[in-house]
Amino acid sequence: MKVAIAQINYHIGHFSSNEKKVLTAIEKAKKMKADLVVFAELSVSGYPPRDFLEFEDFIDRCMQSIKRIAEACNGIAAIIGGPSVNPEIKGKDLFNTAFFIVNGKVQSQIHKTLLPNYDIFDEYRYFEPNQDFHIVEFLGQKLAITICEDLWNIGDDLLYRVNPMDELMKFGPDLIINIAASPFHYEQAIDRKEKLKANVDKYQLPLFYVNHVGAQTELLFDGGSLVFNRFGKIVGELAYFDEDLQVFDTDQLDALPGIPQEQLTSKIELIHDALVMGIRNYFGKLGLKQAILGLSGGIDSAVTLVLAERALGKENVRAILLPSKFSSDHSIRDAEDLAKNLDIPYDIIPIEPGAAQVNEILQPYFKDLPFNIAEENIQARMRGLILMALSNKFGYILLNTSNKSEAAVGYGTLYGDMNGGLSVLGDVYKTEVFELARFINKEREIIPENTITKPPSAELRPDQKDSDSLPDYAILDKVLYAYIENRKGPKELIQMGFEEAIVNRILHLVNTNEYKRYQTPPILRVSRKAFGMGRRMPIVARYLAMDS
Amino acid sequence: MKVAIAQINYHIGHFSSNEKKVLTAIEKAKKMKADLVVFAELSVSGYPPRDFLEFEDFIDRCMQSIKRIAEACNGIAAIIGGPSVNPEIKGKDLFNTAFFIVNGKVQSQIHKTLLPNYDIFDEYRYFEPNQDFHIVEFLGQKLAITICEDLWNIGDDLLYRVNPMDELMKFGPDLIINIAASPFHYEQAIDRKEKLKANVDKYQLPLFYVNHVGAQTELLFDGGSLVFNRFGKIVGELAYFDEDLQVFDTDQLDALPGIPQEQLTSKIELIHDALVMGIRNYFGKLGLKQAILGLSGGIDSAVTLVLAERALGKENVRAILLPSKFSSDHSIRDAEDLAKNLDIPYDIIPIEPGAAQVNEILQPYFKDLPFNIAEENIQARMRGLILMALSNKFGYILLNTSNKSEAAVGYGTLYGDMNGGLSVLGDVYKTEVFELARFINKEREIIPENTITKPPSAELRPDQKDSDSLPDYAILDKVLYAYIENRKGPKELIQMGFEEAIVNRILHLVNTNEYKRYQTPPILRVSRKAFGMGRRMPIVARYLAMDS
Repeated sequence: MKVAIAQINYHIGHFSSNEKKVLTAIEKAKKMKADLVVFAELSVSGYPPRDFLEFEDFIDRCMQSIKRIAEACNGIAAIIGGPSVNPEIKGKDLFNTAFFIVNGKVQSQIHKTLLPNYDIFDEYRYFEPNQDFHIVEFLGQKLAITICEDLWNIGDDLLYRVNPMDELMKFGPDLIINIAASPFHYEQAIDRKEKLKANVDKYQLPLFYVNHVGAQTELLFDGGSLVFNRFGKIVGELAYFDEDLQVFDTDQLDALPGIPQEQLTSKIELIHDALVMGIRNYFGKLGLKQAILGLSGGIDSAVTLVLAERALGKENVRAILLPSKFSSDHSIRDAEDLAKNLDIPYDIIPIEPGAAQVNEILQPYFKDLPFNIAEENIQARMRGLILMALSNKFGYILLNTSNKSEAAVGYGTLYGDMNGGLSVLGDVYKTEVFELARFINKEREIIPENTITKPPSAELRPDQKDSDSLPDYAILDKVLYAYIENRKGPKELIQMGFEEAIVNRILHLVNTNEYKRYQTPPILRVSRKAFGMGRRMPIVARYLAMDS
Repeated sequence: MKVAIAQINYHIGHFSSNEKKVLTAIEKAKKMKADLVVFAELSVSGYPPRDFLEFEDFIDRCMQSIKRIAEACNGIAAIIGGPSVNPEIKGKDLFNTAFFIVNGKVQSQIHKTLLPNYDIFDEYRYFEPNQDFHIVEFLGQKLAITICEDLWNIGDDLLYRVNPMDELMKFGPDLIINIAASPFHYEQAIDRKEKLKANVDKYQLPLFYVNHVGAQTELLFDGGSLVFNRFGKIVGELAYFDEDLQVFDTDQLDALPGIPQEQLTSKIELIHDALVMGIRNYFGKLGLKQAILGLSGGIDSAVTLVLAERALGKENVRAILLPSKFSSDHSIRDAEDLAKNLDIPYDIIPIEPGAAQVNEILQPYFKDLPFNIAEENIQARMRGLILMALSNKFGYILLNTSNKSEAAVGYGTLYGDMNGGLSVLGDVYKTEVFELARFINKEREIIPENTITKPPSAELRPDQKDSDSLPDYAILDKVLYAYIENRKGPKELIQMGFEEAIVNRILHLVNTNEYKRYQTPPILRVSRKAFGMGRRMPIVARYLAMDS
């Protein structure tokens, strides 16, 4: 049996586009003599459809898509993901379903058993877990069809009490098919291969794994669909960060050479590629082209500009330098050098006249109170105001340039430098931003060396340095990683060797700045634990806030 | 047996404060000769603790609190909610547990079976559902202890396959205790009484129901704990929107007179009281006192100001009038009249010098392009900038004054009038804001009549009216309610009698403005379906967007 894997970049709720892509892949698979073409989980709707699933109208459109796709399956079978209606009175209204299509009709529906409901996942919000196990026979082979998480309850830490493959093994299947929607983080490809291999090793069956590719706002899908033969060798691996369609003959899997897995792409290169795809798809799927950003001469806006240029093309990116009276000469020079290196047009718009005017308006109220955070923020907000005015006038989308370290400790101005339609680096710690800059410069100096080597500064008051207010990023980022990604509490952090005072101060900052992050733009997710939909915290709370 | 119901306003993660309140209630219940005192669900942590539950340190602190509370239970038993650790390898790490305490020790743990995971609820994210049913015996009575949702799987629409009370009935219980965390919306008290009565009617047992009270950022808890006798009569009803502790003798429940339920508080009065509590607790729990807001002369800021004054006291509210060159005379006069009626100090800070300066800065780029949304937004953002500067300088929290209709269709300026620490009216449709204004004015004219009767306007260009850009609010709000609260799709809306063109336009506006709502302040939730944590939508999607 020849099986085609169709790895597609879907668009949530864009039924006509998704359907067209699926139909094109069916035609292509037919031409390649495939007997069966396999699409990803919840393909017809795009993933994650979130609360659209609560609309009957949305479900109807999914079903109509499935019907039309089924009608196109002449001379080829297909497996495709979509929601289906639970016919029982008890339980939630929907299943997360794999539709098995033969001869133009849905012949069988396989529902997802294990519904991930952690981190960015909300599947138990919508779907009833499957309790009825069955396999599908096709061309003399018994297919164990599973959906994403169904294969993940293996290893030491078992999140669920049941294991769908254990149930399906009772029917003596010949191969496993897994249709998935497995969002990227920089360790996900490794995790995924381990989990899938554990299944192959346990059940001694070949495995076809079909993933999504492309960005859905903050969630990035890296593709990398896989085929394992029954000996646990990876014999098929589809493109990363791109659409792909490949055909594999089940009779030949055992004989195929394994694809070498040693030369893994580095973490920083993965993050780089994921962010470029994230920006490109954000704009592409919104039907927009052009980005604007404030270029400060610092490293965050420099890296963001390079990523935007790679995602959208230099003709679609506009850089604005917004110096204040506290901006150093080198900042302007560094920013100009970068724009010139990229051949990107830039404008210099000093904010001082605007900031001075606002200060004058407020003089009767501020009187001779000392310069403080209020005046610092006026500058950041004047920049935000000017950038948004240009955005509104010319239809640019403002890219936010804050990094994860700043977002964590609230080192940023709401309605100022925290503005933007999309946060590019909000899941990249400051120390990783430096690594990205080095990676970008690996062949030639694109980002000026001075931008990389000078001490980070917000330049909102004379001679300000980030290190005036924050611990060194080398320490800060380690504590943040342990707290945010690994959920270590204060005692564990101190046991790890961090100073108690620093630990308490950092955790206090993270927990009392939840209100700022609540209003942050969506953040492209590249780590295991990004701010946003996957990290849900109360705002008015008193946990690990110093005065509690 | 004498049972005390302790209805308390907890603070998420503020263990010392929560524990102190619980210990005080235990002492009080003892003095009132209670045999048993019952606290709400997840009392020790506050509800909802959200992802704090993923921190071992947080769970440890919960357990320490439970231990100390248990030690204080001499001569009185207690039931109190908190998380507990699942000792099994399979399944999620935690249970949502009712601890039954006798003689200073936890004698039994009852775990929650039905874990709500819809709307604002995420309980399956953290907790393993209970599968082990047992009752508790105390003073010769058998107690069926249940937790909130455990009693809600009754009636026509069954969300779950099991029903914990059906299991507990096998043990022949004498009464039902339900510890809850049931957030307010304006129909919730009625829903709750119906669900609880359905249980009493079905199982023919008396029922003690203990709820939270107070606000946790956007979630409001109205209290209203209840006691039903076995005939389905409400014989105890604790305070709404306030802490309360009352003792009931189980021997006397049958004889107690039913509390009349006819004179229900009106929807608008409920919303009013809930919003006042929401503002008060937001400030109180953050340890802050003073609010600032922009007073436009329009109805939204007028109602917000009155609610803030009632929540915080007039000495803690500052109103700023920020007229532009498009502001009408009556706007300023109406705003001044309101401030005077409330005896609240106000300042008039014209934004024209600031807006003009920004326009001048941008002149080289805008050249002679026509005045459009860019210039409109500059004004709204100049207001936001000035308000945030005052907020930063003097420590006020900016209250957001947007209503639900505007939030729905994106009629507001990001980083301008959408600024604020808390959105007071973001879950109140414009037509309901008018009702709130009439309610506020029912005894004397507080909000100037002209503010209520004049046509709504953003006053960002000459003679602008909301009706230039939006359908009449009377129609808009009906379509929005059907779409947002009742999830009707376009076909159903047209069948309901709304014009197709208007329906399509409104749904397009709602769905394409998700990006704005993503960056909105937290919204006090008063309806069944508020924007925020209970409504989770993709941003880059193409569902019901006109060009799809």
